[in-house]
Parts: sequence; C-alpha cells; structure tokens
Amino acid sequence: MNQKRMEQVLKRMADAGIPQMLVCDPASIFYLTGEWFSPGERLLVLLLSCEQGPQLIINELFPVHHDLGMPIIRYADIDDPVKLIAGKLNPAKAIGIDKKWPSRFLLHLMEVTGGNGRYLNSSFILDSMRMIKEKQEIALMREAAGSNDQAMAALVKLLPAMHTEKQLGQLLLDIYEELGTSGFSFAPNISFGANGADPHHKIDDSRVKTGDSIVIDIGCRKRDYCSDMTRTFFFQSITTRARTVYETVLSANRRAIDRIKPNVRFAEIDAAARDYITGKGFGRYFTHRTGHCIGLDVHDWGDVSAANQEYVKPGMIFSIEPGIYLPGELGVRVEDLVLVTESGCELLTHYDKELKIIE
Amino acid sequence: MNQKRMEQVLKRMADAGIPQMLVCDPASIFYLTGEWFSPGERLLVLLLSCEQGPQLIINELFPVHHDLGMPIIRYADIDDPVKLIAGKLNPAKAIGIDKKWPSRFLLHLMEVTGGNGRYLNSSFILDSMRMIKEKQEIALMREAAGSNDQAMAALVKLLPAMHTEKQLGQLLLDIYEELGTSGFSFAPNISFGANGADPHHKIDDSRVKTGDSIVIDIGCRKRDYCSDMTRTFFFQSITTRARTVYETVLSANRRAIDRIKPNVRFAEIDAAARDYITGKGFGRYFTHRTGHCIGLDVHDWGDVSAANQEYVKPGMIFSIEPGIYLPGELGVRVEDLVLVTESGCELLTHYDKELKIIE
Repeated sequence: MNQKRMEQVLKRMADAGIPQMLVCDPASIFYLTGEWFSPGERLLVLLLSCEQGPQLIINELFPVHHDLGMPIIRYADIDDPVKLIAGKLNPAKAIGIDKKWPSRFLLHLMEVTGGNGRYLNSSFILDSMRMIKEKQEIALMREAAGSNDQAMAALVKLLPAMHTEKQLGQLLLDIYEELGTSGFSFAPNISFGANGADPHHKIDDSRVKTGDSIVIDIGCRKRDYCSDMTRTFFFQSITTRARTVYETVLSANRRAIDRIKPNVRFAEIDAAARDYITGKGFGRYFTHRTGHCIGLDVHDWGDVSAANQEYVKPGMIFSIEPGIYLPGELGVRVEDLVLVTESGCELLTHYDKELKIIE
Repeated sequence: MNQKRMEQVLKRMADAGIPQMLVCDPASIFYLTGEWFSPGERLLVLLLSCEQGPQLIINELFPVHHDLGMPIIRYADIDDPVKLIAGKLNPAKAIGIDKKWPSRFLLHLMEVTGGNGRYLNSSFILDSMRMIKEKQEIALMREAAGSNDQAMAALVKLLPAMHTEKQLGQLLLDIYEELGTSGFSFAPNISFGANGADPHHKIDDSRVKTGDSIVIDIGCRKRDYCSDMTRTFFFQSITTRARTVYETVLSANRRAIDRIKPNVRFAEIDAAARDYITGKGFGRYFTHRTGHCIGLDVHDWGDVSAANQEYVKPGMIFSIEPGIYLPGELGVRVEDLVLVTESGCELLTHYDKELKIIE
C-alpha cells in the first residue's frame, strides 16, 4: 500500500463529504496498492472508509502477490459479493461509486440496501490525484514515451516493404518486446489512405498505394505507464491539397502546445487548435477533442476539449492530437504528449513531425 | 437490423413490464443490428422502446457502415449524451439498464431525471435470447471451435522447442491468423509448472522444465463467434500424484458432460464434476465454477455453478472446465465446449484429451 497516497485520498474523501467509497478501476487500485488485478467480469472492489480503513474484496480465484497492508476479503464464484459489501457500508451516509463500476453491481447494491444509500460518482477524488504526476511518475512517463519514439523509428523503417496494416501491427509488437516494454497500451491504429479518415480505424489487410496518407497512432505500456503518439506520413507522392491538410494539422498541433502553461483552461488549448483548423476551412473534419490525459491508463480522466473549463497545472500530462479526416480520401493526425511545467510545457514525444514522404 | 430478433426482444420487454431499455453491450448491439462498435470509454447506447422503436445513440467519431434500419442519433465529444437519452425516456415507467453500463452514466442519468425513474438490470432479456443459439449461430460456433482444435494441434507441435510462454502466445497469434480467424477471443493462458496453479496466470518468460504441467487455455474469434478450450500436458515425465490429479480432472470433465441433457439444472452439472473431485480429496483446489456460456462473447451470460438453478435447454453452448490447482506445484484443467441437444449434448471441441506426455 502507498501510505502517502492512501492518506491523501482519505483526506480528500473527508473534505468532499464522502466517508466511504468503492474503487474498482484496476489502475486506481494499482495506484494505491502497488498491485494490478485483472478480474474480468468478476467483482473487484477496494472499499475505502474513513472510519474502517481500506479493505480489498476479491474473488478467491485471483492470487494477491504482495502484502497490501490491508484486509483481503475473499469470496467464491457462488457467493454474492455485493451483499458482502452492503454489510460493510453505512447506508445513512454518502456512498462514493467508481465511474467504471458495471451497472449490474450498482443496481444490485441499491436493491440490497433498500435504496436508502446516497450514491454518487466519486472517481474524481482518485482521478484528480492521478492527474498530477509525482516526480517518479514523470520519469516513468518519459521512459514510456522514449520507447515509443524508438518504436516509431523502427516501424517507419519497415514502411516501404509493402506490409499490410495488420502485418505492421504484428511487427510493432515484436519491436515493443525488444524495447523491454510490456506491449501495446492500446491496439495500434495504422491506416493507409482513406482508412485514415476513420480516426478509430481497425487495422486490416490493406496495402499502401502511391499518394496514400499513412496514419500511425501507437503506444506502449512500460513499467506500468502508457505512451501514445501519432505521426502521419505520405507514400511516394503528395497532392497540394494533402500538403495543405498536413501543414494545417501540424500548425494546429504547435499552436495548442504553445498555449500550454499553468492557469490556462483546457478549453483554451482546444480552441487554439480548433480555431486554426476552422479558419483554414477544415473545422467540420476535425471531429474529436484535442487531447486526453494519460498515465496508468492510456485514457486517464480529463480531456482537452471545449467542455473542460478546468485549469491545467504543473505535473499534468496529456496528448495534443488535432486531426483532419476527409471521408474517402485521407486522414492526418499529429499527436504529442506534453508535461505541464511551472512556466509552460515539455514535450515527451520527440519523433520528428515535419512532413515526410516515404519512398 | 435483424427484424426477427428485434421483434422478439420487444415482445420480451413487454412481457417483463420493461417498456424501454438501454443496451450498451457491443455484442448485444451486434446481435440486433449486425454491426460491431468499439466505443472505448465513450457512451454507446441502443435505446429500445416499445412505443418509439429502436434508436442508436453514438459519438460522431464512429462510422456506421450499414443501414441499420433505425435512426442514428449523433453527439459530439463536447455534448452530454446522457441528457439526450433522458429526454427520450418516460421517467414514469420502468427503465431497463444494461448490466455493463458504467456507473458514471447511470448515476448521471438518475441525477438528470431527478431520481424519478425505476431502474433495473434488464440484460437478462437479451442475454437469455443470446443463450439459445440459432441454427446458423451453431454452425458458426462449430467453425470457431474447429479452428481452435487446429490451433491447439499446431501449438502442441511447437512445444518441445523450449519457447517461453510468451513466445508461444505470439506464435499462436500467427497460427490463428493463418487459420483465417480474427485473433484471440481472450488473452491465451499458457502456464508451465507452478504457474498453472493460478487459473488466470498471465503468460511470462518462463521456460518449461522436466516434470512440468503445461496448461494451454486458448480461444479464437472467427466470424464474430468465440471458441475456448483447455488441454493440460506434461513435459517429459509425470509423478504419480500428478497423474492422479490429471485422471481426476479428466473424469470430472466426463462426468459433467455425461450429465448434460435438457431439463437438468446447471447446478447439477457443476455438482457432477465437483462432487467427484471432492470425493478424491481435491475439493478445495477446484476454486472456480465448472463452466460458462459462450457465443458472441467468450463469457456470455450464464454459468455452470452451484448458484445457477436454471435448467439447460437445447441450443445452449457452454464450457465444462473443471480444474485442480496445487499452489507452488501444478495446475490441471480440461475444458470442452458442449452444445445441448434434444437428448443430451454434442462436443464442439475435438482435440484429444487423454493424458499426453510431451517429449
């Protein structure tokens, strides 16, 4: 158990008037206990109580490898762990619920406790702690991003060999393995030509053709922390229009990054990229938020969007990833990770982002 | 849209007194619409209403590739899709909620609707439909299981070469690729020796040693449907005790399978395996349920456990996978997939399960 973090979360719970809460997010549980669990569909809950201290409720199937410094409550496949939890809660007081807890558990808990509980989403407490990275977390994020820089360089070398998207995805896994990472932080998105117009394209058997854009959005997990970066290349030739699109996205990426410093709102950073793209006439083709926080999860809580009026603070790490997606034609996205510093920001991704045409 | 299934689900909703419900499980949405979506953490809801018919609420980021025969309601990253849904619900009537819906959406919906709604887990409606496979689904399940048989045979041939668990996992992905599947239905569990004592061991850099048990629990996804099978081998030698464990698990597997026919309870099938293992003195080392249903998801709703008093019916497909896990020593699991027929059951997995010592 990370004593310092545990004290911090209990203090924040007390401040927020949430004396008890259920944490189920495996990354948050790792953040507090130092151990990862993958319970699949089975219930896993770290019950935090200002009065009773922490307790972990976990199926007997899953080994616990370290002394977590807290009671471990075991249940079997035929038990009802929700009833077990209900017995440990004070139904007269607010009950914080993890944002990711599947509804079947929450609805069952509400039924068991007779609907007397005051339930609320309490994930902001841990999420806001995870949002500001500690010194050693920053070092680990730099390391993960550095491995991703190396992986991008290795992957780009394979590009002219006419592999399919899927084959490149397989080769990337080998590259990550050699770099000592524990594999993908998310399924890689490698999109040739019009495939790139779907920002979440699933890699398939497509082969690259002359003039194609090549969107490469990849990330690894290294020593528990995630990396994420996108670069877009062109194959053998580029049209004037595609060049305009690329330069627009790259400038938007740089404008957003230039805007980052403490006490600027996330929404202002989003606007710096979005307004520029809109001004160039491509606004309706930039369909997603400008970025997302990242750490133990590739999508940590918090995003760079018009809806987020919070201020950025030193220690936050998030992506800046504007894109333009022209249906049936091409996609361009340029994504970096940035760390907010006392006076501005530091780039964690270093792979070159100037326009590159692969021969 | 699958009209027949849609009519069936609306009829079941009316019968259950749930005139409106939110479906978020991508497999259930595929089951009804014929299209898979992978929305990540973004809200995806198929709103089914006996009065208004179906509507799909989906982020504008995700392309819809077919005409689904229903309105598609788009929202952007900066919109509040929960409010949008709330406006389409009748708060005076019961609101069915998908068991997998993240609590953050449900709690937000309860807040927006002023807590007036009567919310309940309605997943049983679609889950119970998906549980009884249609003819063409059975054909697809046979195909997926057949590919898994072939994959097991190909993997076993690689076994004496002293690959690590992880390397075998990588090679299995190539095998699945060659077999025309779309990859893993779950991360493969390949465990040497004492690693096998954790039924959910994560493959690592271990190499096999003389006398080790080798648990291979693998499955692929083929044409949307999942396979799943476990075989346990021994490397070069076997102790008398390990042989006893293996024979006990194999007999338990066969006893459970022999028990399967319509109108027998899932709990009785579980007991057939469990009582036998307990009688041999290994009861406390058989720590999980005997099996789980399978189809579009590798863990479909429904399990073979003492807690499930439902009766099995023709068209159901589930696993029978007793195991014995001796901490620090070995693991043995023998898992088959069975299809319930009018008079008994049919095995979908055909790879040999007699004790095999790999040289």
